[in-house]
Amino acid sequence: MTMIQLFNYAGIFVFAATGALAASRRQLDIIAFVFLAAVTGIGGGTLRDLILGVPVFWVKDPGNLMVCAAAAILVYFSANLLESRYRVLLWLDALGLAAYSVIGAAKSLALGFDSTIAIVTGIMTATFGGILRDIISGEPSVLMRREIYVTAALAGSVTYTVLHSVAVGPEVSALVAALAAFVVRGGALYFGWALPTYHKPGRTSEELKRDGYIKSK
Amino acid sequence: MTMIQLFNYAGIFVFAATGALAASRRQLDIIAFVFLAAVTGIGGGTLRDLILGVPVFWVKDPGNLMVCAAAAILVYFSANLLESRYRVLLWLDALGLAAYSVIGAAKSLALGFDSTIAIVTGIMTATFGGILRDIISGEPSVLMRREIYVTAALAGSVTYTVLHSVAVGPEVSALVAALAAFVVRGGALYFGWALPTYHKPGRTSEELKRDGYIKSK
Amino acid sequence: MTMIQLFNYAGIFVFAATGALAASRRQLDIIAFVFLAAVTGIGGGTLRDLILGVPVFWVKDPGNLMVCAAAAILVYFSANLLESRYRVLLWLDALGLAAYSVIGAAKSLALGFDSTIAIVTGIMTATFGGILRDIISGEPSVLMRREIYVTAALAGSVTYTVLHSVAVGPEVSALVAALAAFVVRGGALYFGWALPTYHKPGRTSEELKRDGYIKSK
Repeated sequence: MTMIQLFNYAGIFVFAATGALAASRRQLDIIAFVFLAAVTGIGGGTLRDLILGVPVFWVKDPGNLMVCAAAAILVYFSANLLESRYRVLLWLDALGLAAYSVIGAAKSLALGFDSTIAIVTGIMTATFGGILRDIISGEPSVLMRREIYVTAALAGSVTYTVLHSVAVGPEVSALVAALAAFVVRGGALYFGWALPTYHKPGRTSEELKRDGYIKSK
Repeated sequence: MTMIQLFNYAGIFVFAATGALAASRRQLDIIAFVFLAAVTGIGGGTLRDLILGVPVFWVKDPGNLMVCAAAAILVYFSANLLESRYRVLLWLDALGLAAYSVIGAAKSLALGFDSTIAIVTGIMTATFGGILRDIISGEPSVLMRREIYVTAALAGSVTYTVLHSVAVGPEVSALVAALAAFVVRGGALYFGWALPTYHKPGRTSEELKRDGYIKSK
Repeated sequence: MTMIQLFNYAGIFVFAATGALAASRRQLDIIAFVFLAAVTGIGGGTLRDLILGVPVFWVKDPGNLMVCAAAAILVYFSANLLESRYRVLLWLDALGLAAYSVIGAAKSLALGFDSTIAIVTGIMTATFGGILRDIISGEPSVLMRREIYVTAALAGSVTYTVLHSVAVGPEVSALVAALAAFVVRGGALYFGWALPTYHKPGRTSEELKRDGYIKSK
């Protein structure tokens, strides 16, 4: 198994585990755990493959789905041991983000796409599974959090793409790039790192209703 | 028209009707009824075809879109006769789930994919239209309900796949499998059937905010 | 650059700007501005291309992504000058809707698809980016507003398809059709134009909970 394949399974496993943690927070049954784990684990890579116009990875290799099921079952029987499942969800999501920002970029480059597409598909692969998880399960969106999120995926896919372009080997590139993404996202989680954010409140929803721009429901 | 084609149109019609019922609950206009009916009616099958890498079914046969429009118009002019539109939505959704869990599996098997992919695409086809409907219209998600949902789709697609593998004819397989899915989901709706669900509340959103894991907006 | 290409870039720019405005309302950082701008700007066209089975437009021409980034950066540094960002978002969304209802239909017709598919892909291209924007950013859904929305996209794609079928040149067809869509949506925004909407409240969510159809969370 190559480093890239290892990253792929690791990324799927941890993302799938975040989906299962979201299911545990909604107190769903084990089939729903597996469902939400699979959506989260394979969502980003599925979108990447559709957009690149190549066969979807898990249709060719259903072993990927087994990894999702394994993560879901593990979480189902162990999540009660965790003190804060949401905190664990965020850290596993950070690991998945790091692995997938590299996988997404690596697959595009291996298929001969240029750097821009590689970086964009890296970010897409890293973020889309989590977006689906949060939308379907009704969790607060990781993407809308104030601390750094998309920027970490950008760091991972840019680092891999640059190292690849200067002919660093794929193993070293993948390790360094994933580490870069994880450090950025981990720093955001641990220290609250954030880029300057846009700040001008404007009118609130309530004021918009008052002023007639939004109709009250 | 084969049994599978009949199931296809029936599934589209009832799912489209649930989309129109969601539109009626939001008091939208008739064009929005048709739009939401179409998204719900063809959403699951569209995702299935994209993932399997085959032409999208309704692009080849726009008659499928007419079925959605017909369901939307029927609901627009008759929903006021219903005592509880949400209850009707749930039961029609159960019918659509049963039909689509079979259609999704049958199409994959007919294209030569293996059992795992057939079961997964059966579940996807059966659930994705309803997920889109609930997300876009802001309905409470059927998937997050405590009683059995994904498991019913699993029952339908597994039953069809097993019967197919032991060479039972497609008509009988489709009828038995759809009945299996509908009985499971119907039992969940009528008797409140549920699998054991994960139960350990953990901290609530309010407690997570207090403890600094989620920032207050 | 042809009229259709110009409409394409203009549509992407204004839709991307609405995504950035949504990001500004959530006080995100500049990378998240670019991310949300890109999702909104290219989402509808991406879905259209996947469904038609043709290469995704921005993979072939990454210049489309640069247009999204430019719109995001412009909004990041100028949104504080706006009195009501949500009002501007709605009007830019109307412009994007008009441009994309034409682009979506034109691409399908150019590829040889029939009128029904052209009209449907026109509506899809025009609405799907905004749907993604609202779902991901948590904005109130433009689609669920009481005044005309989907109907405006329908007006644009039907007008273009009809003019195309009677051999009016693409430039004139595109201009007239986009104007038709913008007038309909603009009238809805300015005068509150609405089609008759379905009106029978039925039971409210609270009543459904009381009656046991929805379980209290």
